[in-house]
Formats: sequence, C-alpha cells, structure tokens
Amino acid sequence: MISIFGGFQNAQVYMSKRRLTEFKSLEANVFKSLFEVRTIEIITTVKAMQERSGQIRSQGKRIVFVPTMGFLHDGHLSLMREGKPYGDDLVASIFVNPTQFAPGEDLASYPRDVERDIELTQSAGVNAVFIPNTSDMYDKNYQTYVNVEQLSNHLCGISRPIFFRGVASIVIKLFNIVKPHVAVFGQKDYQQLVVIRQMVQDLDLDIEIVGAPTIRESDGLAMSSRNTYLTADQRISALTLYQSLKKAQEEIAKGEQDATRIIDTTKEFIQSRPDTEIDYISICDPDTLIEIKTIDKPVLMALAVKVGIARLIDNMILSP
Amino acid sequence: MISIFGGFQNAQVYMSKRRLTEFKSLEANVFKSLFEVRTIEIITTVKAMQERSGQIRSQGKRIVFVPTMGFLHDGHLSLMREGKPYGDDLVASIFVNPTQFAPGEDLASYPRDVERDIELTQSAGVNAVFIPNTSDMYDKNYQTYVNVEQLSNHLCGISRPIFFRGVASIVIKLFNIVKPHVAVFGQKDYQQLVVIRQMVQDLDLDIEIVGAPTIRESDGLAMSSRNTYLTADQRISALTLYQSLKKAQEEIAKGEQDATRIIDTTKEFIQSRPDTEIDYISICDPDTLIEIKTIDKPVLMALAVKVGIARLIDNMILSP
Repeated sequence: MISIFGGFQNAQVYMSKRRLTEFKSLEANVFKSLFEVRTIEIITTVKAMQERSGQIRSQGKRIVFVPTMGFLHDGHLSLMREGKPYGDDLVASIFVNPTQFAPGEDLASYPRDVERDIELTQSAGVNAVFIPNTSDMYDKNYQTYVNVEQLSNHLCGISRPIFFRGVASIVIKLFNIVKPHVAVFGQKDYQQLVVIRQMVQDLDLDIEIVGAPTIRESDGLAMSSRNTYLTADQRISALTLYQSLKKAQEEIAKGEQDATRIIDTTKEFIQSRPDTEIDYISICDPDTLIEIKTIDKPVLMALAVKVGIARLIDNMILSP
Repeated sequence: MISIFGGFQNAQVYMSKRRLTEFKSLEANVFKSLFEVRTIEIITTVKAMQERSGQIRSQGKRIVFVPTMGFLHDGHLSLMREGKPYGDDLVASIFVNPTQFAPGEDLASYPRDVERDIELTQSAGVNAVFIPNTSDMYDKNYQTYVNVEQLSNHLCGISRPIFFRGVASIVIKLFNIVKPHVAVFGQKDYQQLVVIRQMVQDLDLDIEIVGAPTIRESDGLAMSSRNTYLTADQRISALTLYQSLKKAQEEIAKGEQDATRIIDTTKEFIQSRPDTEIDYISICDPDTLIEIKTIDKPVLMALAVKVGIARLIDNMILSP
C-alpha cells in the first residue's frame, strides 16, 4: 500500500500496490488515468475521521456506514452494496475489536488482509475506509462499556458473556467517529443486529439501522471470515448448520409445533458429523430472544457450533 | 404556562403566565412588545428536539448544552451563563432522571417547579429548553446502560451503586438528542464531571466538556436543589461541609501531609453538629479518585453528609 497523495480533504488517498502498478504502466495520458483510477480515502485516526464526517455532513450529504472486522468476503461486500443507495457517502471500517474477544478466543489468530480488503471496498463503491490503530481506540485508561442488558443474556451471550458488551461499545464508538445517518449490519449476526437496534433506540442515536440478508456459499454455508479455519472435511461438517435450519423449516411447514423435538433432532443430526461441538441450538422469540416451547408464530432458530477450531453461527426465521 | 404561538421551527413557543400578563398589559405598540419579550422554545419530545438540533447544526451554528434536573438556582444559571459564549445556540434540559435514583432515595420528593425554571432559563439567555416525559425517555423495554467502570466505584458510587450508571446513560441520551458541540457541568458534582469526561473520551463523543466553578450562598453553602429540604437549624449544620474544606486547606497550607489526620479531624468536627450523618470524607487523586495517604501534590477533598433528610456533597482541590 503506497501513498500517492498526501492530505486530500484532511485524509490521505492510497492505492494498492497492484493498482499502482497498473497506474504506472500507463505511459500516456496520465491525467486520464488519474480520473479513471477509483480512489478511496484511507483514514487511520479518530480525529481525521471525525473531521471528514463533519465536513461531509456540513455539505448536507448523508453518510452510510458498514463496520467490519476485515478479511472481507461477499457477505461484507453485500452490506456495502445494500447500503450504497441509502446515502451519498459510503464509509466502511476495518477493525478487529479486542474488547469483544474473551481470553482464549481467537483474537490473535483472527484472519487479516488489509491490503486485499481495501481493494474489495473500492470495488464495492466505498468512499472512505476507517482503519484505526487499537491504541487510538483504547487508551490504557479505557473503562467505559455499553451494556444492552436483557438481549445480551441469551444465545451467544451465554458462552461469550463479554461479547455483546464489547460489540455495543465498539459500535457506539464507531458511530461517534463516523457519524453516519444509516448503518448496515448482517442478519447472519442476528443477535448483534437486535442488540444494536435496541441500543440505538434506548440511547436515542439518530441513526437508521438496516439489516441485510445472510449471504451463503453455493452449498449453503453462511459466509464468515472464520470459514477459513475449516479443513476440507470440517467444511462438510459445517454444512449441518444450514441443513438443520432448512430441515426444521420443513418440519414446521408439515405441522411440527414442538420446539424441543426439533432441537433434539437437530442435535442428533449435527453430532453425527465429525469435529462438531454444539454450543447452542435455540428456538426463540425473534424480538426478545426468549426461548419458545410451542411454535405457533414466526420464531428465530439460531445455532452455534464449533467445527474444529471455528465457532460458526447461523440462523433463520421459521414460520408455521 | 400558556401557549402563545404554535409550531415555531418545529417547536412551540411558550411564555410564563407572569410574562403573559405583562405582555397583555401593553395596550399600544404590540409589535414592539413582541420583539422585546424574550421568547424561548419549549420542546417536549425526543424527535422534535433532534429535528431542531439538526436544523441548527445545518445552519453551521454551534450548540451549547446545560443538562439539569430542574428546580433551578444560581448554580444552574451560572452554568448557562458560563456556556453562552461557547456557541450560537444555548439549550438547557429539565428532567428528573429516574435511573439515577435507587429505591428509597428522593425521586418522588425531588423538588420541582417547571414554570419558574422556564422563566429562569429565559433570563439566563437560553434559546430552547428540552423538557421530556419520562415515558418518551424510557420505554418499558428500556435496557441499555453505560458504565464508566473504575471512576464510578469511588466516593458517591459506594453508597449509590447505580447512580453513575444512571447519570452516564441519561447524559449520553441527552447528548444524542440535543447534539451539542459543548456541554457544561458543575464542579460541585465533581465525580459526575470526571465520569462524563471519561465517557466522552472513551466513547469518542465529539463534544467539548466545560467544567464550571461551584456557586455558593453568601455563607459558603454550595448551592443545591436539595438545600430546600433543610430546616433552619440543619442549615447551620450544613455549613460544616464547606467549613471542613477550608479548614483542611489551612492545615495543608501549614504543612500537614497526613490525609488520615485531616479526615479524622473533619469527622469529629462534622459529628459535633446536630442532625449530621457522614457518608464519606475522602482525600483522593483528582483524576482517578483513588484515595491518597500522603498529600504531596494537589488532591481532591470530597465529602458527602446527610443533614436531616438532605444528602449534601461538596469538594475542593487542595494544594500543598
């Protein structure tokens, strides 16, 4: 990644090495190529990002924001494409947030490829990428956390008790830095989406939250940066998550109303495949996440399964 | 309080009854009087306040904000006067926030006089007052709280364990509603001021926090809405707070370095007066609020004493 221009609207414009090579290879009509190369602003400090957002807002433009932890895949890019029409300026962030990882989780090994991520965000029409340093986000005296108290105590919150406290806190920080009018989150992280919607409502954040559909591989596996941890055999075991959701939908369509029976069948099915360790299988209210015994209205079925070292999640709204 | 105009910049303009009488008594030159009567916008819903702030900001104006729980005294008005030069639009809020009161505290009996408060804010040059309903601020599903974890565990946080969680949460809500560039808080509520500064820094709120000096009655008693609870005799006992701070300052100036000795003397002095019950007397680091044994740099001396039913606080920075 090489800096081409310094100080463009208080930020810097970078191009990836690959694009730079293409750029240099053009021997004639440099000015034409300058306008053809899609540029993206890379912003690395809280202050510069806040200043840029202030300027964009003062021009009467609407900012759309997609926060990510990087190692982007089509799921992330779909959030950006989904968000694009909601405003005039599309901002993505790439930040692996330490406060949502517990000791022993995969913070250190979480996959990273910032250079590739920047190219992908360019291709998705992003105008600016915010890539802060951890030390700029969390100084040594950091001590403020946002808790969405009830919604954080279900599903993933049981085995990851500090996870949603970390998520809510980093998201409100990013909102205060990027100052978006609209923010887009994936339905694949369903609990995260409802936690953030609740936080936005409770804390009166003047931001529209858009939920975007889960993007899947051709075989149905929900896209996740953690899929990269899977061996070929584990990849097959990982398909049981989506297969379970589809099977449950079929059973419910046939008239099954007993949530426990569906959960037991699912458990057996997943456990029959190698390298699987179930964290939870839940059938619950889509708004409160409280477990439901009798399925007589649309429910959320959500599951978390460790396949090898990859903790995978998936979910679906199932309607009787 | 009677509505004079409806729908002025998405809000309503009210005048107090007293001003209305003055207004009506003017028989000639109604237009002149219209311009002489200082009007103030009274805004009662979150949505109307956010819209107004969005409009003010889009005009390139700076918003200064003074949150209060009403029953205003000169201490509050000094915050407004202090804040006025920091921007173009001065907003105050009046809201007795239930989430910072524990069961058994004085939420129900907390003194209120909104009509008088509106007149006083007018006189202090406030442009708009935000007076929300509790139900608009906290719906029945409300569940999001901001915790400033270390700073909340000292001084008042010990006997009021949910207090700063309630304060931090209502303040961030009000910030998201009023959208100020600058907010003013009194140094009398010293711990509240440092908790809010820490929250603003940690959550990257793009707001300047101004701390304003404590305003005192002529006899030295720090102004507080709760002073109204005091009987004439208790009013005399209440003076021990400020007197203790001044005595400690004198002792330190004479070379006293032992915090425990100062605290013990203070305790004896306050306990010698009727109707006093000490909550805490602390000599601590002004930034971390961690207790200090040897006074070899500026310290915060802070105390909380129940005098009758009134829980009073006071503090001072003391320098050796």
